[in-house]
Amino acid sequence: MPRHLERDLERLRKEILEVGSLVEEAIDKVIKALMERRPEIARDVIDGDEAIDAKEVDVEEHCLKILALHQPVAIDLRFIVAVMKVNNDLERMGDLAANIAERAVYLAAHDAIRLPDTFQDMAATVRTMVRQSLDALVNMDVKLARGVLRRDDEVDAANREMFEALQQLMHDDPASIERAVQALSSSRNLERTADLATNVAEDVIFMIDGEVIRHSRRGLTEH
Amino acid sequence: MPRHLERDLERLRKEILEVGSLVEEAIDKVIKALMERRPEIARDVIDGDEAIDAKEVDVEEHCLKILALHQPVAIDLRFIVAVMKVNNDLERMGDLAANIAERAVYLAAHDAIRLPDTFQDMAATVRTMVRQSLDALVNMDVKLARGVLRRDDEVDAANREMFEALQQLMHDDPASIERAVQALSSSRNLERTADLATNVAEDVIFMIDGEVIRHSRRGLTEH
Repeated sequence: MPRHLERDLERLRKEILEVGSLVEEAIDKVIKALMERRPEIARDVIDGDEAIDAKEVDVEEHCLKILALHQPVAIDLRFIVAVMKVNNDLERMGDLAANIAERAVYLAAHDAIRLPDTFQDMAATVRTMVRQSLDALVNMDVKLARGVLRRDDEVDAANREMFEALQQLMHDDPASIERAVQALSSSRNLERTADLATNVAEDVIFMIDGEVIRHSRRGLTEH
Repeated sequence: MPRHLERDLERLRKEILEVGSLVEEAIDKVIKALMERRPEIARDVIDGDEAIDAKEVDVEEHCLKILALHQPVAIDLRFIVAVMKVNNDLERMGDLAANIAERAVYLAAHDAIRLPDTFQDMAATVRTMVRQSLDALVNMDVKLARGVLRRDDEVDAANREMFEALQQLMHDDPASIERAVQALSSSRNLERTADLATNVAEDVIFMIDGEVIRHSRRGLTEH
């Protein structure tokens, strides 16, 4: 491989991990904002989404430049295409965190409702999935990627639990309906974040093994 | 441009329009299934999602082959990258239609609730957005792409209306809470479909004008 291509690919690995770190931080913060009813942290997440958006644009431009300049083939080409897709998925995760942040602002401005304990565990699992899917990408680690797929089932189950608990709350206390709908939306957005981390893991497996597994798993478990 | 590249690009245009047609058909069918309470049509949509998934895999493989074989530059490179992103967005739209189809099966198996009239208009707008965003892509039509962006605001407003009407229904008739949550989910999934068509339009504008508008609009209007 020409040395310049190797250098550019190394830079790309660093860049995509940086976007990933911003997304992980946004997830941490938004869960804190939601659980501790702290709208100022939620607003931080909403403002911070711009930085993630700007980085997405940069990474895509760099991918296009590397493609045009080095015209890579085989695994290098597949890696760059995977980075472009993952980049897009990360940006969507940032949007979802900002979306949950809006729900957190709403919920903090109204009387507290009890959020099921499941929620915090679910958030921790999603955060781990994001981290591991990116590590799998930059280290080309298929085993780690497969671990991410397994965790997605846990998150789906947690999301279903959230739905049941929150629908029960609406029955028990109709005055809480609007707040419960906001909490449902937060849970669903977290579950979608896990789906996106799963996409990343699937793209890693496809990049390395050429195995298309993404459509045997994705799509129909979501609420 | 070498003749073989031109021929491959033409084939790619046809292929992405074919995926688009399948998605449009899925949207039509799922709305019919929902409004007319016809679970057999909903099951058709769920089964049909496999065909969309298979086509997505084919299109991506073809993009990778064209990149490796012709090493295109400038607008051809940008077009192929745009097709890869749009292909991914179309596959997600197919998932969303299948997801709405699951709600349609649930709703048809329970007593009818009144779905706001807004819903059908919203669906028609979303379908138009999908069609126009793809026409904009293959014809490189920036004006058409900008029209899609404007329609996204209509869909967001319709989704908000749906949320208000359905939350009101939950208050008026707590026995309808589970069904209203399923209807909310359908409306949100339709709104996400419009967001994805908007992404496509934004990618078209970026491809042609190099103008990054996607982050000035996307993300925070969703419920």
